[in-house]
Amino acid sequence: MKQSKLFGRTLREAPAEAQTPGHRLMLRAAIAKPLAAGLYTWLPLGFRVQKKVEQIIREEQDRIGAQEMEMPVLTPAELWKQTGRWDMLEPITFRTKDHNGREFMVSYTHEEFVHLHAMQEIQSYKQMPQIVYHFQSKGRDETRPRAGLLRVREFVMKDAYSFDVDQAGLEKSYAAEYGAYERTFKRMGLDAISVESDTGAMGGDVAHEFQVLTDVGEDRIAICSNCDYRANMEKATRHMAGRSARADGIPARTEISTPGTQSIDALEASLRQPRSAFLKTLLLRDQAGKVVAVVLPGDRDVNEAKLRKILATGEVKFANDADFAAAGAVPGYIGPVGLKTRLLVDQGVEDRAYIAGANKKDAHLRDVLIGRDFQGERIDAADVRAGDLCPKCGVGTLAIKRGVEVGNIFAYGTYYSEKMNATFLSDDGTRKPFVGGSYGIGVGRAVQTIIETHYDDKGIMWPPQVAPYHAHVLALPVNDDDVRTKAEALVSDLEKRGVEVLYDDRDESAGVKFADADLIGIPLRVTVSKRNLKEDALELKLRSASDSEMVPLAGAGERIAEIVRSWPR
Amino acid sequence: MKQSKLFGRTLREAPAEAQTPGHRLMLRAAIAKPLAAGLYTWLPLGFRVQKKVEQIIREEQDRIGAQEMEMPVLTPAELWKQTGRWDMLEPITFRTKDHNGREFMVSYTHEEFVHLHAMQEIQSYKQMPQIVYHFQSKGRDETRPRAGLLRVREFVMKDAYSFDVDQAGLEKSYAAEYGAYERTFKRMGLDAISVESDTGAMGGDVAHEFQVLTDVGEDRIAICSNCDYRANMEKATRHMAGRSARADGIPARTEISTPGTQSIDALEASLRQPRSAFLKTLLLRDQAGKVVAVVLPGDRDVNEAKLRKILATGEVKFANDADFAAAGAVPGYIGPVGLKTRLLVDQGVEDRAYIAGANKKDAHLRDVLIGRDFQGERIDAADVRAGDLCPKCGVGTLAIKRGVEVGNIFAYGTYYSEKMNATFLSDDGTRKPFVGGSYGIGVGRAVQTIIETHYDDKGIMWPPQVAPYHAHVLALPVNDDDVRTKAEALVSDLEKRGVEVLYDDRDESAGVKFADADLIGIPLRVTVSKRNLKEDALELKLRSASDSEMVPLAGAGERIAEIVRSWPR
Repeated sequence: MKQSKLFGRTLREAPAEAQTPGHRLMLRAAIAKPLAAGLYTWLPLGFRVQKKVEQIIREEQDRIGAQEMEMPVLTPAELWKQTGRWDMLEPITFRTKDHNGREFMVSYTHEEFVHLHAMQEIQSYKQMPQIVYHFQSKGRDETRPRAGLLRVREFVMKDAYSFDVDQAGLEKSYAAEYGAYERTFKRMGLDAISVESDTGAMGGDVAHEFQVLTDVGEDRIAICSNCDYRANMEKATRHMAGRSARADGIPARTEISTPGTQSIDALEASLRQPRSAFLKTLLLRDQAGKVVAVVLPGDRDVNEAKLRKILATGEVKFANDADFAAAGAVPGYIGPVGLKTRLLVDQGVEDRAYIAGANKKDAHLRDVLIGRDFQGERIDAADVRAGDLCPKCGVGTLAIKRGVEVGNIFAYGTYYSEKMNATFLSDDGTRKPFVGGSYGIGVGRAVQTIIETHYDDKGIMWPPQVAPYHAHVLALPVNDDDVRTKAEALVSDLEKRGVEVLYDDRDESAGVKFADADLIGIPLRVTVSKRNLKEDALELKLRSASDSEMVPLAGAGERIAEIVRSWPR
Repeated sequence: MKQSKLFGRTLREAPAEAQTPGHRLMLRAAIAKPLAAGLYTWLPLGFRVQKKVEQIIREEQDRIGAQEMEMPVLTPAELWKQTGRWDMLEPITFRTKDHNGREFMVSYTHEEFVHLHAMQEIQSYKQMPQIVYHFQSKGRDETRPRAGLLRVREFVMKDAYSFDVDQAGLEKSYAAEYGAYERTFKRMGLDAISVESDTGAMGGDVAHEFQVLTDVGEDRIAICSNCDYRANMEKATRHMAGRSARADGIPARTEISTPGTQSIDALEASLRQPRSAFLKTLLLRDQAGKVVAVVLPGDRDVNEAKLRKILATGEVKFANDADFAAAGAVPGYIGPVGLKTRLLVDQGVEDRAYIAGANKKDAHLRDVLIGRDFQGERIDAADVRAGDLCPKCGVGTLAIKRGVEVGNIFAYGTYYSEKMNATFLSDDGTRKPFVGGSYGIGVGRAVQTIIETHYDDKGIMWPPQVAPYHAHVLALPVNDDDVRTKAEALVSDLEKRGVEVLYDDRDESAGVKFADADLIGIPLRVTVSKRNLKEDALELKLRSASDSEMVPLAGAGERIAEIVRSWPR
């Protein structure tokens, strides 16, 4: 490929809105460009990268016997309604209507539709296990797309779906995909770890995410210092020390005047007590408008994902003034005592005296005790934090790291098949629901995560197996007949040998060409220059190395092909 | 691939709604299945076919130097509005809004967006010519999806876009794509002819369609009996004999009473005159609500595509009662004389006496003469029909055939770049607008058109180069150890030789297996049976041949690989 004709121009400076190193480099190297916030085009260089990433994913899916297919982007509302996801997904999806008023969703994932097909194509237990997958565009109405391809409004996902006759079969399919994911990310140069994760809108109980730890990630991962416990904050729990029985001898609650003191911060300052001395009470509404109060220790934050799961809702919002009035509460002074609403109490709330809102203006209550002064359903609804005890070993402490989720796997079992009555004929002659899982990888996010973890101050450093080209041949200067002739002969020789070449035939200075080569980050730079040709030599330089090597012009093609063949696939 | 685990089950009977032979076979052979009207999933067998079709298209695009990229499915409204296509395309597209109210279209094509990218990536004339392309899902809100993949609401299109510095450059790019299309369709087994076509929503003047002539097509193509003139009915014209000057001596128009006679058919019956004796006057509104009357000879049908082009509108509808009142007309009795609206007169209206509506109830006018009794803008707005004289040679007559449009190419020039101010730095130092063309192929429609033109009463007969597999190995019966062992050894041997194999390992009768093999239509059937093995032989049968051949088991793998290698690519 001649660089003079490449559809994609490097930029000296990234646009101001670029937020992460990978985002800046992706724009500067013309890997992908936005059409609008969160909507990206792969330019030819980036297209080649994502095709290689796609091919690695495909090969590892095929290796475990998965069959490739393709479901559409637009999906009819009826099936989403059957499983309850039409409403649940409303806040984060795009919908459209045809001119007859029939509703469609720009697909979020395809569980409902693959079950529909399975009902038609899989009749008997003899046909299972089966895994099918496709690469297809997904829509997400992200309110804040960010950091280039890390969080977008449209992206291609590889989503695979397994169908088994029972839980044991599902576990095997899940393990097969787990293994495929480990190989897939390793092959594309990503150091991904698996972590326990929330099942979110997917249903079921067991799920893992594959996370690449990097500061640009927006997920937070709790990692045990002692054992192998790793969990997304949306799912992470902590070891609870036995609740102390300090409840004896706590005086009856008394009201204290706290004018204008409407937050834990304000209480902390005015009453000179630690945050843990207070109860934090949140009045919230779910997607259906049902109101609930959540009570937490004052030093803990509510975890929205856990709460959504507990409430089986797609969205949790703060309650409005009418909700406060109905609950007999006052904003800023809400507390659990006497509250007229469903009350959920985080497990972190201990059997001891707390200060809590009095449900009247400018007043709090002292010596509020759970069980005596209020009752509630015990839940786990708080964020863990660094230093919490590991819930698995009970010994190590948790550290919180940032990560990018590059893949996720869900064992949802019969969550969809029961709602859809999707059954097969089992070996005992009865009809049973499919037992399933789904397995996703976002292609674009994987590509940008590769950049985020493979760059230096000069530009991208592609792992060879996903690089847009193997070799970047620079002609210096291109208007020297001898240089151009020999460079073109080399390019042609390399291409015959299966080496993918970007050929910088632009009429630019050496400085510009070297800088662009470093920016684009093709693994091997090959310089054909007037000076080198005097010695019948070429300069080879690996992007990942600081040194270069002079090699004789004769045999250079074979030498380069050898280097390329030595790279991992 | 073991057929027992194939996600896709053959059907004895096609669902009743299947409309064409290809549609029926596509469903019966589990090539693709619908999720909803016009929304299809490629099942694994069909997926393999469409990937091969895609790869042929890709190779021919790459051969002419086109660069692959990928633009998103969701596209922001702003750019569509800039070119006027947001409104124009409204009737046939899907739109959505994000939760902030920002509008998007499920993309129809990508001219606007590729121009946006070109403005950023192509700065100078030195970087051209350039052609970029992608394969991407398109949405069409078809009111009547039909015949499986022939007319759908979502499909993957390969759309390519050329950028040149001038018209001469565009003509070269257009010719390169024209050649690529000829090779592409030939390679995938389609006998496509190029025809002149309407530019429709694409703008510009020059366009060709590639049509495969088949009775299941819904396009009508006018083909000259003498020269190479071939045009879509939406574009086709006819040679007009010189208008006779029979206008002299026509008496003044007179009113005749025609109670209850509201159509040409009724007039023909009651006045006993041929249809050509009447004028047909249509009162229509364009998308913007502007009203226009179109006058045609009574024996000609209006051509909506031509009219849309003339009116530069996306949609033409019949006028409503208020429009009739405003024009001073009466439905059923409308005529050009005294009509208070813009009047367009088809070129087929001759300078002679006609009978036309009188614009009052139950009355027509006799001896109505254009130029004397009414004036109008001359246009070409009528369908051609079989027997019309060819507009190119003036000698041959036109025949009308049905065809499926499998590709189209448009030379729109500066239609988009001028509206978008998309310019480059030309060699004279000034900024000039890009001169462009676009080039589309619908992948799914191509696949079904291959089926529509390659089948017999038993099933599909895939051209080898796009067949889902090369060989279909049948084990008969599979529960015979010797048969199964030898069949599996053969499959393994073939796969090592690069032969793609579907292996029918199902516990089914010979009758079922042979019928399914004929239905699915893989080019080479290989039968490993107990009977044949007694003679250490296999049976080979080409799907396209009636005879079979016995070959020795030893060396069968190489023999089959040879056959496969001999096929076109």
